[in-house]
Amino acid sequence: MSPRVSEEYREARRTEILDAARARFARDGFHQTSMDDVIREAGLSAGAVYGYFPSKTALVHAVVDDALARVLRAFDAASAEITQTAGDPGAEPLDGAEVAGAVVDRVMQLLSGAGIDTSRIALFAWAETMSDEELRVQVAARLVELRGRLRGLVTAAPWNPSAPVPDDAADDAALALLAAPIGTIVQRHVVGDADGAALARGLAALARSWAPRP
Amino acid sequence: MSPRVSEEYREARRTEILDAARARFARDGFHQTSMDDVIREAGLSAGAVYGYFPSKTALVHAVVDDALARVLRAFDAASAEITQTAGDPGAEPLDGAEVAGAVVDRVMQLLSGAGIDTSRIALFAWAETMSDEELRVQVAARLVELRGRLRGLVTAAPWNPSAPVPDDAADDAALALLAAPIGTIVQRHVVGDADGAALARGLAALARSWAPRP
Repeated sequence: MSPRVSEEYREARRTEILDAARARFARDGFHQTSMDDVIREAGLSAGAVYGYFPSKTALVHAVVDDALARVLRAFDAASAEITQTAGDPGAEPLDGAEVAGAVVDRVMQLLSGAGIDTSRIALFAWAETMSDEELRVQVAARLVELRGRLRGLVTAAPWNPSAPVPDDAADDAALALLAAPIGTIVQRHVVGDADGAALARGLAALARSWAPRP
Repeated sequence: MSPRVSEEYREARRTEILDAARARFARDGFHQTSMDDVIREAGLSAGAVYGYFPSKTALVHAVVDDALARVLRAFDAASAEITQTAGDPGAEPLDGAEVAGAVVDRVMQLLSGAGIDTSRIALFAWAETMSDEELRVQVAARLVELRGRLRGLVTAAPWNPSAPVPDDAADDAALALLAAPIGTIVQRHVVGDADGAALARGLAALARSWAPRP
């Protein structure tokens, strides 16, 4: 094999293992899933799996980071699309709450995808960060990245340039905006009835109610 | 002992055990805490502790339910106070986002209290509901109660009767509003820098940005 084919092969194998681990972790959590479960799910040899991930901890870290990287990519795709649409000549100014809700809804749809809702992994990961400091630092860095994206979105407010969040309130606004999908994921899995579309409608209703009276 | 004294005694003992369990669970999570740890922390005999809680699962359920009951009581106290203030003759109309943020901030302050922040238990509890259906149903019922309170608050909007959330959007608004503190608790423990005050400022900034242009 040429080095290039070998690298592609390795990457495909790694992806197969991550897919298998993600499915098991989303269903049963990290503690109830063994390396043997993942090996069986992936249909590979133990040696092959351990060759990529020397321990379950390494696999947990990789699955969580991969999931958060997907969220960031989905966010970028959704917000780029909306920014472009809002920049079209003659485009109507968009409602900020609806834009925020629509972006979040798109990201949450991507996570639920086919089969098991991989956003279940988020609940296991947050608990795990309380006893795994390396994982906590890793997840924190991704959440801070997400806040940075949200900060950029609300300060630029491409859908309505007359109403950006001022710089000195932008960190708090990003925190509040990131809280919304996180809290919706928790309600989705614990109560069973929450999704991005309901969140988007709720944010829009609150924004209308909270608007300063003329 | 008269039956009354005996009942008070039992209640005090039960509270002692719950306090000890809450402290250990908040620090180490449910899985890393044994009944022996709780017994040592409470300074009681094993027989005494098992007399109140026959298993760790029973203790986990009781601690989680007690924590959620405290949140509901704190919410009721904070919202009653704000409703009363807003009803004073000549009171200025309050900003809805600031009211929501203030209530959440008050509840979160109560949870963090002295010593270990008991809101850490929330992260363990959400993960646990994924494999403990009885706990999930119990936590879901409390979250639905909380949503009901938030629904009442935003539809009555006592701080500004001219801007209630309409009935048909109230369920979604309550979901979005409950998502905010949940998502802030996660960020508080994972990133380490989020609190109710920052959330309150962030919600107010978003509301100003999202207000319909005149």
